[in-house]
Amino acid sequence: MQPIEYRDASPEVRAVFDDIKATRKVEDVNNFWKYMANEPRMLAHLWGSLKEMMGPGALDPLTKELIYIAVSITNNCPYCMASHTAGARAKGATDAMLNELYAVTGLANMTNRLANAYDVPVDEGFKQK
Amino acid sequence: MQPIEYRDASPEVRAVFDDIKATRKVEDVNNFWKYMANEPRMLAHLWGSLKEMMGPGALDPLTKELIYIAVSITNNCPYCMASHTAGARAKGATDAMLNELYAVTGLANMTNRLANAYDVPVDEGFKQK
Amino acid sequence: MQPIEYRDASPEVRAVFDDIKATRKVEDVNNFWKYMANEPRMLAHLWGSLKEMMGPGALDPLTKELIYIAVSITNNCPYCMASHTAGARAKGATDAMLNELYAVTGLANMTNRLANAYDVPVDEGFKQK
Amino acid sequence: MQPIEYRDASPEVRAVFDDIKATRKVEDVNNFWKYMANEPRMLAHLWGSLKEMMGPGALDPLTKELIYIAVSITNNCPYCMASHTAGARAKGATDAMLNELYAVTGLANMTNRLANAYDVPVDEGFKQK
Amino acid sequence: MQPIEYRDASPEVRAVFDDIKATRKVEDVNNFWKYMANEPRMLAHLWGSLKEMMGPGALDPLTKELIYIAVSITNNCPYCMASHTAGARAKGATDAMLNELYAVTGLANMTNRLANAYDVPVDEGFKQK
Amino acid sequence: MQPIEYRDASPEVRAVFDDIKATRKVEDVNNFWKYMANEPRMLAHLWGSLKEMMGPGALDPLTKELIYIAVSITNNCPYCMASHTAGARAKGATDAMLNELYAVTGLANMTNRLANAYDVPVDEGFKQK
Repeated sequence: MQPIEYRDASPEVRAVFDDIKATRKVEDVNNFWKYMANEPRMLAHLWGSLKEMMGPGALDPLTKELIYIAVSITNNCPYCMASHTAGARAKGATDAMLNELYAVTGLANMTNRLANAYDVPVDEGFKQK
Repeated sequence: MQPIEYRDASPEVRAVFDDIKATRKVEDVNNFWKYMANEPRMLAHLWGSLKEMMGPGALDPLTKELIYIAVSITNNCPYCMASHTAGARAKGATDAMLNELYAVTGLANMTNRLANAYDVPVDEGFKQK
Repeated sequence: MQPIEYRDASPEVRAVFDDIKATRKVEDVNNFWKYMANEPRMLAHLWGSLKEMMGPGALDPLTKELIYIAVSITNNCPYCMASHTAGARAKGATDAMLNELYAVTGLANMTNRLANAYDVPVDEGFKQK
Repeated sequence: MQPIEYRDASPEVRAVFDDIKATRKVEDVNNFWKYMANEPRMLAHLWGSLKEMMGPGALDPLTKELIYIAVSITNNCPYCMASHTAGARAKGATDAMLNELYAVTGLANMTNRLANAYDVPVDEGFKQK
Repeated sequence: MQPIEYRDASPEVRAVFDDIKATRKVEDVNNFWKYMANEPRMLAHLWGSLKEMMGPGALDPLTKELIYIAVSITNNCPYCMASHTAGARAKGATDAMLNELYAVTGLANMTNRLANAYDVPVDEGFKQK
Repeated sequence: MQPIEYRDASPEVRAVFDDIKATRKVEDVNNFWKYMANEPRMLAHLWGSLKEMMGPGALDPLTKELIYIAVSITNNCPYCMASHTAGARAKGATDAMLNELYAVTGLANMTNRLANAYDVPVDEGFKQK
């Protein structure tokens, strides 16, 4: 699939692009959205979801970017690591924070497999009420 | 493998268990450590790593627990989800925060695959200097 | 490992290459098979499996290609995405079909983790008899 | 988190539940939605996405269910396997079709790793224009 | 799907079951094969592949069982961990060996993500000729 | 993040680099460690763990390298595959061994999903005492 530029986009796609640009105060949308425009229905749903969930809420936007990076590292998505690292830095992430993030992500991937290998039963105190 | 209780543990393992109990102010270590005690070398290294990296640093301990949960969800580790959710709640996580965490983790898993499927090239502005 | 070309292949490998070429009506096998030829036993088993399972059956060949792509996206295998997208297009897949496939694959990856995070119990009606 | 039943749900959640029930012609929503109701914003976005993308389109609804199952197997999500297998059967999936689906999913997981292990370069003919 | 017992199996399936029993010197096949018998074509191919590749070769059978366990831990397959641990023990694996295997598998899962997070370029000396 | 060369490293990082060079008898550390040096605490813990667990023990060092490669293939980590393949070859791995390793890794990834898809119950004889 090829990316779809604003000038070639349908009114439906342009409306999403316009909202992304206004919300994020950017002059053009990043490549992810230009490719997603090949599926205008999913483009609209996805942008709606991300706009609502990645903004301020119970968790602050920077924390959400860090969570996003941790998942993207675990799944090995170079584009997502790059775009959300840029997003995290724009929201105040420092090198020290990213280095800790990488360490925690690495450790979690290790202990996930160790808990798995030993088939550790959940402690009574950890069971949710 | 069977879990190793304090009373049956070697001095090497007991030293780690004692440090976990003193650091976390708990009466007994949780099951994960009792199983890890089957490999005393790894037990010591792992506790040393987690003790240093999960405490206060560039990221606050609650943020690190949330990152841990996001990775554990992505990798499908029920024990890790249970133990780190308990850890996150003890550090102040609310239901609202956990619900947002789950939403962000879900969205990241989706966009990871969409970026992947469309083979989206990294934008110039996202490339790290 | 290096790819093994027909001219350098053992009779055992040539027999598999010949069958691939005859079955698929192509002049040369694609790179995957040339690398697999480094392990002639596995080459023969793998081709035997794919030849029998990817052809017509309870599911039509195009549906099987789409399933293959969905798994390859989830596992992040660029070679497999490229080769099976070519295979799907040769069997009639349109851009509209591929865009829907990507959307469904993305959504499945999201809901997989949400079901996981909330530890949703299987409804009685969904349990297999 | 606990599931949220209709009688305890907010008007916002009830509206989504009502639409699920009307669309699918069922008396109650399945457990997944009752847990998702803990995050009403994500509930609404997710149902909106699935309602639009899983219905008729370029791919028929049964094919989409099969794709969903393949991804759920690959990610190891028992709830998703159970719910989408029920969905696939309701849309006409037979045992023979499911058995082929499992075989194709297994083979794709194998060849994904073999392509990966041998670092197979993409053939010129497979590159997308 | 239900498991298929020998008494209910087709001649085609019985032939595979007989070969498994003779090769492994067991009185009955384990559950995996009884479920795989729902897809007799895949059953035959899979048994043929495993019989040839898991026996003696360039790697000894115990090493192959350990590799199998490491992959099964990484993918979180409890059945596979159980069956191949039994297989490894039957070929001489000790608790000390399994504990080291778990440690190495955990470490590999961690460094895989750290290499990924830092996007480490491959050293010249590591590139294959 | 940028790699940290010895000349620019802190005394803490230099001490780890010196130990890696002395242990492995190499003139310079490989790229992985230069990037890990951005997080000196994790660098020290990680090297400590790998030094102890990857050396001689219940499993020989070559077997551990093969296990490492199998996990790295499954997780799709090109850097890790390259570095541990070099490590395995330095410890005696032949092409025939690596080809079998790839085949076993591929087969394990397939049967992991088939056991998963059929939801095969663990045989009594496979349950650990």
